[in-house]
Amino acid sequence: MLTISNRGQLMPPSPIRKLVPYAEAAKKRGIKVYHLNIGQPDIETPLQILNAVRNSDFKILEYSHSAGNESYRRKLVQYYKKNGIDISYDNIIITTGGSEAILFGFMSCLDAGDEVIVPEPFYANYNGFAVEAGVIIKPVTSSIETGFALPPIAEFEKAITSKTKAILICNPNNPTGYLYSEKEMQVLKEITLKHDLYLFADEAYREFCYTGAHFSAMRLSGIEDNVILMDTISKRYSACGGRIGAFITRNRTLLNIALKFAQARLSPPSFAQILGEAAVDLPDNYFDATKEEYQKRCDVLVARLNKMPGVYCPRPGGAFYAMARLPVKDADAFCQWLLESFSYNNQTLMLAPASGFYSSAHLGKNEVRLAYVLNVNDLNKAMDCLEKALEQYKD
Amino acid sequence: MLTISNRGQLMPPSPIRKLVPYAEAAKKRGIKVYHLNIGQPDIETPLQILNAVRNSDFKILEYSHSAGNESYRRKLVQYYKKNGIDISYDNIIITTGGSEAILFGFMSCLDAGDEVIVPEPFYANYNGFAVEAGVIIKPVTSSIETGFALPPIAEFEKAITSKTKAILICNPNNPTGYLYSEKEMQVLKEITLKHDLYLFADEAYREFCYTGAHFSAMRLSGIEDNVILMDTISKRYSACGGRIGAFITRNRTLLNIALKFAQARLSPPSFAQILGEAAVDLPDNYFDATKEEYQKRCDVLVARLNKMPGVYCPRPGGAFYAMARLPVKDADAFCQWLLESFSYNNQTLMLAPASGFYSSAHLGKNEVRLAYVLNVNDLNKAMDCLEKALEQYKD
Repeated sequence: MLTISNRGQLMPPSPIRKLVPYAEAAKKRGIKVYHLNIGQPDIETPLQILNAVRNSDFKILEYSHSAGNESYRRKLVQYYKKNGIDISYDNIIITTGGSEAILFGFMSCLDAGDEVIVPEPFYANYNGFAVEAGVIIKPVTSSIETGFALPPIAEFEKAITSKTKAILICNPNNPTGYLYSEKEMQVLKEITLKHDLYLFADEAYREFCYTGAHFSAMRLSGIEDNVILMDTISKRYSACGGRIGAFITRNRTLLNIALKFAQARLSPPSFAQILGEAAVDLPDNYFDATKEEYQKRCDVLVARLNKMPGVYCPRPGGAFYAMARLPVKDADAFCQWLLESFSYNNQTLMLAPASGFYSSAHLGKNEVRLAYVLNVNDLNKAMDCLEKALEQYKD
Repeated sequence: MLTISNRGQLMPPSPIRKLVPYAEAAKKRGIKVYHLNIGQPDIETPLQILNAVRNSDFKILEYSHSAGNESYRRKLVQYYKKNGIDISYDNIIITTGGSEAILFGFMSCLDAGDEVIVPEPFYANYNGFAVEAGVIIKPVTSSIETGFALPPIAEFEKAITSKTKAILICNPNNPTGYLYSEKEMQVLKEITLKHDLYLFADEAYREFCYTGAHFSAMRLSGIEDNVILMDTISKRYSACGGRIGAFITRNRTLLNIALKFAQARLSPPSFAQILGEAAVDLPDNYFDATKEEYQKRCDVLVARLNKMPGVYCPRPGGAFYAMARLPVKDADAFCQWLLESFSYNNQTLMLAPASGFYSSAHLGKNEVRLAYVLNVNDLNKAMDCLEKALEQYKD
């Protein structure tokens, strides 16, 4: 009999996917669904970077260098410099989205059975890349009570075994919106150094910090060889479909290893490299308006949530996600009920149950993630729905 | 101490890469290098498909569906129908190049330690994907004496173990240019069925067949669940930089497994999906001119090579590669010498030593792969160089 691989069976489906048929059915019944479940920004991609692609005049859509166009990598150095990150163009491999940067990191630093420590809740697709690479994710739990701050160092120490090769941190965090402080990053540096670990830094939301400045792992001095930055232009420029990211490290041995993985898949997409290169020339104030918009939405969302009886939502420091505890026993069932059995003024909302972001089986059962990728008006309507829904809902 | 993963160390570098510094040094000395080493076509990408991207007017560069835009998948059904392949749009997952389709196949069907049988010489990057997936490639040797025809079925039987899960065939073949006949495909069907194996079919060069018609593995009846087509638009439309391919199977269980790998990386590149969709509308005679051009080059190349004393090049049936046996002991050393120590009229050529395409350590030492991606004039000049070089060269 033909068999499916074990890893294929282990591969987690998207935690949101199981709700999609319910959302589609609701729409078929004529109900408007507010999507707070996905990280697809509604912000327009800057026209001038789309135009860089549209005005291109090359004749052959060729492979680029496996590490990405040299002109793009050189340009990116300027972008990082503005963000306090001092690197050279040959510290960079352009990847197919941030996704591939994570996979290259797992593949280059860890073997099957090796362990990476990740504060939970975490971006659910880390599980997928871990299964692909045969790597074990060891969660260290952060709590809604502390706003999902970095767990105490003792928790990391407890999680470390002879198989531990890396710590993976997403800052600002998806799904919690937590912004790790410079002090917390220094704590991570110490433990990384003490145990000879890699520090994987997913900084996809670098531009979206509201309660303080971003402190990149690349700015930690004395652990240059340990740090790998896994970056993407997806959220930065609302360019998710470009599939352009970057694997960045000052560790040249490691970079050369990662480059072999890059060579096997030939090159990252050519069109969106043009877009990424043009994006570095966006005016310095480009992010101001976007950030202001997200901050306004964040304010509305958090205020509305915390006014609802039994709901608690710590204020996110960055990204465009918030985690909320709801007065329900099983958020998965509640989210399904929202789509299947509820409507208010012919409207409802779709949320991401938090259970899919936790690695520990029993956690997050009464939490949801909300992506504030809707304008304030729609966000308020979605909150109206949630308010009414919580009044009606019985576990 | 920070460690590199074993697979990172095992990961093979590009077989051509080690020669690149010598080519660059030659160019710095003012020598013109004819590149017959790479599969980057010099044919212009059809303007109308580039224009489909350039004239696009969307406002947000969004994630597409993880399986690719439905409109593109529906359109592709027409393309495959024209090629005698009857499938539905939901048999298709759009991938990031053919590369990702191969990786999804390895990941979904095989676990670490499982084996896939591949006729050698084979496309060198299969080795890379095998290392990533922890899969073992078991070569079955084809020979230049038979023009690299399918090895006898007994050789496959010998290679099959309890760990064998799949046979991987590239048709027409890179690097040999061999075009597998319908009869040979039927032989593969029998052995696939007999041992419950998957048949992975890499048909990147489907359009480039010179000595007969292409017979796709998807046309084999009775093994619908076994066959996975790993396709790409890279060579078809000279669109290598788009990074658009496809994972296609009628096996719905398997497709759903592969879709989980697709979901983890979110979506394939959006820009080039527009290009791919537009390409289906190219006129039916689009390939005629391209094919005629390649055929002319093939004729010139093969004729010139076989006229050189001690050189043997079987006539390729498809793709744009030819393998040649040279009167040298070590083609790696010869190819390096061409770049390092030889020139004729201030020109030389870069070839791919065949050793990198063989899995068995001792094979292909006196063979090279030539990609005829240069116009006839340049190809003739390159052959002039090779002729002179072989006269001068002493092992």
